[in-house]
Amino acid sequence: MLKTKITELFSITYPIFQGGMAWIADGKLAAAVSEGGGLGIISAMNANGDYLREQIAIARSLTDKPFGVNIMLMSPFADEVAAIAAEEKVAVVTTGAGSPVKYMEQWIAAGIKVVPVVASVAMAQKVARAGASAVVAEGQESGGHIGELTTMALVPQVVDAVDIPVLAAGGIADGRGLAASLALGAEGVQMGTRFLVANECGVHQNYKEMVLKATDTSTIATGRRFGGSTCRQLKNNFSRNFSKFEFSAEATADAVNALGVGALRRAAVEGDTKEGCFLAGQISGLVNREQPAADILREVAEEAETILKGAAKWLG
Amino acid sequence: MLKTKITELFSITYPIFQGGMAWIADGKLAAAVSEGGGLGIISAMNANGDYLREQIAIARSLTDKPFGVNIMLMSPFADEVAAIAAEEKVAVVTTGAGSPVKYMEQWIAAGIKVVPVVASVAMAQKVARAGASAVVAEGQESGGHIGELTTMALVPQVVDAVDIPVLAAGGIADGRGLAASLALGAEGVQMGTRFLVANECGVHQNYKEMVLKATDTSTIATGRRFGGSTCRQLKNNFSRNFSKFEFSAEATADAVNALGVGALRRAAVEGDTKEGCFLAGQISGLVNREQPAADILREVAEEAETILKGAAKWLG
Repeated sequence: MLKTKITELFSITYPIFQGGMAWIADGKLAAAVSEGGGLGIISAMNANGDYLREQIAIARSLTDKPFGVNIMLMSPFADEVAAIAAEEKVAVVTTGAGSPVKYMEQWIAAGIKVVPVVASVAMAQKVARAGASAVVAEGQESGGHIGELTTMALVPQVVDAVDIPVLAAGGIADGRGLAASLALGAEGVQMGTRFLVANECGVHQNYKEMVLKATDTSTIATGRRFGGSTCRQLKNNFSRNFSKFEFSAEATADAVNALGVGALRRAAVEGDTKEGCFLAGQISGLVNREQPAADILREVAEEAETILKGAAKWLG
Repeated sequence: MLKTKITELFSITYPIFQGGMAWIADGKLAAAVSEGGGLGIISAMNANGDYLREQIAIARSLTDKPFGVNIMLMSPFADEVAAIAAEEKVAVVTTGAGSPVKYMEQWIAAGIKVVPVVASVAMAQKVARAGASAVVAEGQESGGHIGELTTMALVPQVVDAVDIPVLAAGGIADGRGLAASLALGAEGVQMGTRFLVANECGVHQNYKEMVLKATDTSTIATGRRFGGSTCRQLKNNFSRNFSKFEFSAEATADAVNALGVGALRRAAVEGDTKEGCFLAGQISGLVNREQPAADILREVAEEAETILKGAAKWLG
């Protein structure tokens, strides 16, 4: 059994968080991950408070174990869902796409452990000073909104900069990634893409199939020209048109952003393989099987244990 | 002492290659790395055959240990330097920026071990079929010419796809990176940025200072709009102007490429902090000390050993 600061701090069996993927990570998936021994996370995405309350209730109906809520800070409902997370006293709040500092006091006062997802050393230090319990250092190989640094480069630099435990995210889908993250100084990992194909994940089956069939070169990061919303996704008709327009002479930041509206819903709910935006990580090429969340957790942890137990083979 | 397929195959003490950095990795640096127990590599860059012969002679005057030559396949002198590497029967040839397959037969016939640097599973498989002894799977956190995949995502996918040993490169500058690479299934690493600040590296002192002072967010990848020559470098006046022009309405692929001419020389030889192009990896933020190459090798290996020996702490 793996034991790290993350398993202790969050009272979970495996040092594995499930990423708070918009349109994907709902109460049912979060409950399955928490029930399986990891930390499940509900995405509040850019929905209103009713949606979040509903998903929290679903998760609580399915598990007694702790789970988290991910607050996407660019959401128009960020203030509302931040307050609901505090009211509901969920065990953990993770945050993405910006600085959560203005919300942290209310969460910490409610007894919630705050774990911001960060893409740089400066942001890790900022949230650590504001009372974060841990940080997720997420590399740009990750699916969805990304920064510039990669997991291999970011994790040790964050580990050196803060005293709180670090989880690694981005490019991790098996026990090798977990064992490597521990070697880099992390105390656990967050995985998104691998849980996207969990049996309990309610995303459209076309989305799962696209991930299962992906190879190493199947993703592209769009939104780099104007900055602010770089997004890693599976290559398809939508991503091709987006990239082409983005780099065209007539593109503006607003026009580029407008192109993305509704595209996540078209992918996750409608399974529109042509016009949907299928967020997924570069590690999609390693994700080849739909399984129960509990099996994913057990398999990843056991593989990491085997690697760590076998480390003596490198010591001549 | 670390023992892997790479230390055995190349008869080196540490499973560490030094990257073949253009304008930086000369005969003196390569000799220092090989003499210190790693595999030093001379960059043939885009110089002619006379330069390469001279650097090989310098390395041979400084060490009896094996070293390698890196052939940059986009060089106008690629055919010439490829033939010289075969004539000189250097121990190892590494290659970058394309497919080396058309040269591999002559190198293998000369008894040379060929180790292409690859950025995708498909290229790894292609060179493995053509007789490569190993591959360097290099992530885009690396300095210089880069692909799209990151080290964390690329390495395990390449390991699964080929039967030859894999070295990880990109984002690695200490023992944590080496231990993590082994956990991912690699048998060794290649480091560039850390060796750039070796005492024996003859690059301009301003270049070293820029690396030593860099933080996690100090690099930028330019050349993404038109593709083909994406390059990671330290942010400065040159990179800012390059990026600005690249994304401007009037930019063309040719005009963008023309901007780069002479910029590496201005950085490495003249130390022109304003108009030079200072290639370096995202891990620059971790590189804080100028040391002899032998000390770098010993320190990285010992740190990795300590991590691997301590792996039991994670097994409850």
